[in-house]
Amino acid sequence: MSTMGASASVCYNEPMPTFNDSTLLRFAERVLVAVGAPTSHAETVADHLVGANLAGHDSHGVIRLPQYRAHVREGKIDPAANPRILKESPTTALLDGNMAWGQVVAKMATDLAVERSRKYGTAAIAVRNCYHIGRVGVYALDAARAGLIAQIFCNAHGVARVAPWGGTDAKLATNPIAIAVPRRGEPVLVDITTSVVAEGKVRVAKLGGNDIPEGWILDSDGKPTTNPADLYEGGTILPFGGAQGHKGYGLGVTVDLLGGVVTNAGCGFMTKSFGNGVLFQTVDPAAFDESDAFLDRVEEYLEYLMESATLPGVAEILVPGDPELRVRDARKESGIELSSGVLEHLEELATELGVEGP
Amino acid sequence: MSTMGASASVCYNEPMPTFNDSTLLRFAERVLVAVGAPTSHAETVADHLVGANLAGHDSHGVIRLPQYRAHVREGKIDPAANPRILKESPTTALLDGNMAWGQVVAKMATDLAVERSRKYGTAAIAVRNCYHIGRVGVYALDAARAGLIAQIFCNAHGVARVAPWGGTDAKLATNPIAIAVPRRGEPVLVDITTSVVAEGKVRVAKLGGNDIPEGWILDSDGKPTTNPADLYEGGTILPFGGAQGHKGYGLGVTVDLLGGVVTNAGCGFMTKSFGNGVLFQTVDPAAFDESDAFLDRVEEYLEYLMESATLPGVAEILVPGDPELRVRDARKESGIELSSGVLEHLEELATELGVEGP
Repeated sequence: MSTMGASASVCYNEPMPTFNDSTLLRFAERVLVAVGAPTSHAETVADHLVGANLAGHDSHGVIRLPQYRAHVREGKIDPAANPRILKESPTTALLDGNMAWGQVVAKMATDLAVERSRKYGTAAIAVRNCYHIGRVGVYALDAARAGLIAQIFCNAHGVARVAPWGGTDAKLATNPIAIAVPRRGEPVLVDITTSVVAEGKVRVAKLGGNDIPEGWILDSDGKPTTNPADLYEGGTILPFGGAQGHKGYGLGVTVDLLGGVVTNAGCGFMTKSFGNGVLFQTVDPAAFDESDAFLDRVEEYLEYLMESATLPGVAEILVPGDPELRVRDARKESGIELSSGVLEHLEELATELGVEGP
Repeated sequence: MSTMGASASVCYNEPMPTFNDSTLLRFAERVLVAVGAPTSHAETVADHLVGANLAGHDSHGVIRLPQYRAHVREGKIDPAANPRILKESPTTALLDGNMAWGQVVAKMATDLAVERSRKYGTAAIAVRNCYHIGRVGVYALDAARAGLIAQIFCNAHGVARVAPWGGTDAKLATNPIAIAVPRRGEPVLVDITTSVVAEGKVRVAKLGGNDIPEGWILDSDGKPTTNPADLYEGGTILPFGGAQGHKGYGLGVTVDLLGGVVTNAGCGFMTKSFGNGVLFQTVDPAAFDESDAFLDRVEEYLEYLMESATLPGVAEILVPGDPELRVRDARKESGIELSSGVLEHLEELATELGVEGP
């Protein structure tokens, strides 16, 4: 049930339709079951999508449902499939995602990494044939909530938007890295693309008719540009790092090597099939010290950082991952806003699938 | 034997004194033995220092010998000490460096990581009480030459030059990350500080009376400055990333958490003792696929990257790690140049220790 009906006449000055997270969760589950997902898969995927909305990453939220449905129809997702282990040792595994929901595959990989590193101190799980896993940081957080240090290298293949340093051709995807470290309360989370920005932000600027900051993209001639449309006319996104973009490039290459080459998932335009290749690594801090002593030190270190004086206009030093937590708390309270355009798409989807709208 | 005698009158227009690497290697070994290192330790440390000169990183080369000798005298290095294992499992170990030579400690950690990940697929080795290990990438390369993927997170403590994102106090060190991936021939190597630049580059500009580029440092008021002297008057180096400096900050925090907090080595100014806290992680790609197939894919991927068209003035796309290899090849051939100032210091050191000069 929506807290506000969909209306084609909603304009930008009116308040946006707002939903609480459990309403969206149930809606997403209905859609996913209707396209063929077993209930447990639907719950896993819905939880991930609405979690992205809660964290403020709407581009990875329920807005994806129409795309996911289209990809099920095109055979890019097998909605009832399960990943399977192709090769394993006590501390490692290679998973074939079987083109199941990416979130289902990534959850299995995370669970395996947690279980094995708890037993043996460290683990590495490689994943191929895997559809879009969504927000990489979520899996790192899950492992860190279970007490482990987690590192995830997630490439995308079948797609590329990012130029190598010094180059003008799109060769790499935005290739994120997520690292989470346990903390009392919610873990520390670094969850970054190795490009200056995610492609979605350029697309949003283009749709809104806005310029983008200099330093985000090059046009097809390799010239800096602030016109987002240039990206879609043969342009490229730059590796992150500004004048030190060779560092972002190096990290992006690392993500392809670990996520795409080690796993044999593929990289960039080297393969046509779209998906994520992923390497999950976990380390148990208990291999080195008592848990309480470790967690005490984490708090002491974060306090030490936050004691820094701040620049004018900066209220406080933030721990990586804190901004998302604050948005989540706010949205748990006040709900998740969807633009009327997004809502219309979701209502249409519901009608087509014969399920109740959000 | 020097190829050119030391001379106080050498000026900048004369060719710099040049040495071949084996000459410098034997000199460094003589110095290290004279300050109390057993022969095998002296060989390890000398090899590392001259290797840094060969790779073009002169700030980490034989220029360090006078400082190392001073630190032995001050008790910051125990020149005959060996690291020992404090806690271990088949796949993990915590090493007490016993304030031995950092290179000796890091070599033991690397050897342990290689041996254990070959046997069990993956390994994580934590190091505390460790003096300066030098160039972090060297250990990642050693592990990758042995066929393993290596990730090294190396903090420094007892020192801090880098501000947290949005802050004006020096809280973090330049905290490098090194990642190496096996390749036929020399491995791919990403070896980056999480700050915009290493402190040494700012120092060199200051000594040379040169400005530094904007975006490197803030002065004590948090204002951008191009005067390198401002760093030493309460200024700070920025995390790398340009406008996306929150990403470099996140990675710098990760290095402290993994290198300094997990290991209990300490972070930044939270401890007075100077040294490196390090986490070494290795993964055996053979856990997932045949070695030949993996190495084929690495080559195919690197070729795919290098096919990119280039920006005007860029001759070719480089594989991370290649620039150092090219310098090494050139210096193996034509020798290593030392400024007359550096050479004078090394000659003085030799005289004081009663060993033959370079």
